[in-house]
Amino acid sequence: MPRYKLILEYDGTPFVGWQRQENGLSVQGALEGAFEGLTGRLITVKGAGRTDAGVHATAQVAHVDLDKVWRPDKLRDALNAHIRPHPVSVLQVEAAADDFDARFSAIGRRYLYRIIDRRAPPTLERDRVWHVPRRLDVAAMDAAAKLLVGHHDFTTFRSTECQAHSPVKTLETLDVVRKGDAVEVHTTARSFLHNQVRSMVGSLKHVGEGKWTADDLKAALDARDRKACGVVAPPGGLYLAGVAYGEAARAEPASDDAD
Amino acid sequence: MPRYKLILEYDGTPFVGWQRQENGLSVQGALEGAFEGLTGRLITVKGAGRTDAGVHATAQVAHVDLDKVWRPDKLRDALNAHIRPHPVSVLQVEAAADDFDARFSAIGRRYLYRIIDRRAPPTLERDRVWHVPRRLDVAAMDAAAKLLVGHHDFTTFRSTECQAHSPVKTLETLDVVRKGDAVEVHTTARSFLHNQVRSMVGSLKHVGEGKWTADDLKAALDARDRKACGVVAPPGGLYLAGVAYGEAARAEPASDDAD
Repeated sequence: MPRYKLILEYDGTPFVGWQRQENGLSVQGALEGAFEGLTGRLITVKGAGRTDAGVHATAQVAHVDLDKVWRPDKLRDALNAHIRPHPVSVLQVEAAADDFDARFSAIGRRYLYRIIDRRAPPTLERDRVWHVPRRLDVAAMDAAAKLLVGHHDFTTFRSTECQAHSPVKTLETLDVVRKGDAVEVHTTARSFLHNQVRSMVGSLKHVGEGKWTADDLKAALDARDRKACGVVAPPGGLYLAGVAYGEAARAEPASDDAD
Repeated sequence: MPRYKLILEYDGTPFVGWQRQENGLSVQGALEGAFEGLTGRLITVKGAGRTDAGVHATAQVAHVDLDKVWRPDKLRDALNAHIRPHPVSVLQVEAAADDFDARFSAIGRRYLYRIIDRRAPPTLERDRVWHVPRRLDVAAMDAAAKLLVGHHDFTTFRSTECQAHSPVKTLETLDVVRKGDAVEVHTTARSFLHNQVRSMVGSLKHVGEGKWTADDLKAALDARDRKACGVVAPPGGLYLAGVAYGEAARAEPASDDAD
């Protein structure tokens, strides 16, 4: 059966998350509904990362097996026609190798977290950013962020519901930059723990507000205790921004339980 | 009575436009409702530009007269509390001179128009951009745009419902730039005619698609005939992005009937 790789964008606001659930519409469910409309068959769509309710994607990746060969651009357009009016868009379709797996073949994930740090609430970016009503010290946040980069036990920054076997991960990059009234946090790793990005961002916010020093952040990491974590940043500011594939020559498992 | 200048951001999607109307909620009406909630009085809010239904603002300007003196930041916060859940936000409040008029004191307006020119429909930016499903030639659009800059009779690019006395305006700048999958059109003038920006953008899209040459755009301008206009770009891509004040030493009337 021909396998296809899909690159997806979605507004996570109306969804219960990526994963199919009993209690409401998921992104996966909306896509599977579009495939059913298109092919008349029940087809499973497998995603690279299981984003939580309210979390967005600018480049989620998924794969599907179909029972006929499609021209990739025709498949993309047909899916986009069938998925309306749900805010999910198929940016790109590519024919994939039989052993390509969106989740297990991935060797890197990239997330973006966006904060608006001004007094006035957001309007055009409602549900797209975390509104923090006072100016954050971005230089302090970025400096402290560097303490989290590397190979660590991230128990502090992991949801108690996280199902990963190990809390040890290698954080490749964690950068905090200002863009006008917005603060962007960019991070990459082979994989992330459940709620890891939002937990790190919530703790970095304490640094940006002057409530925590960089040493406090380091102490929180070293505590390996979920109770040492700062607030967990809300889902609406988080974007799955990219998934990398290539030669899988590294030791860590490639599964991801992020957000 | 103390006068205040307000700088406003709003998501125009749920509104019938800036101006108070019988047939639904306007931005002006939402603001006046917040003032009534705050002061118990009916207060008129006067805006610099009358944006149409669905048109957004990142920096609309308005003025109001109140019967007591407010600390500007307290007034901003109180208004933002009262205007919820409408997507209007007061970014800044300043005490203004008695003769300051948001509309008639303005000496310049700046608009941004955003297009996403890719095959896949937008999700996160639904109602925030014009979706054009094929790649536009931005260099051709920008070169053609320069033919509209300057002092011209803009009858072609003016709504038949425009109430301005004269169709002659001086367009100061009109620049088309690419930002990834987005095309941004930036334009400034002392004032604009009704639907002028959306009419110019819709005609520039013809140039970007190769349907029109720069000469065709010039011929449309020279025709001084509304029927010579290309399509009118939809409202969701348009943002009132700034209003300038200063020494009003120029000849054209400062009123604005844009969008």
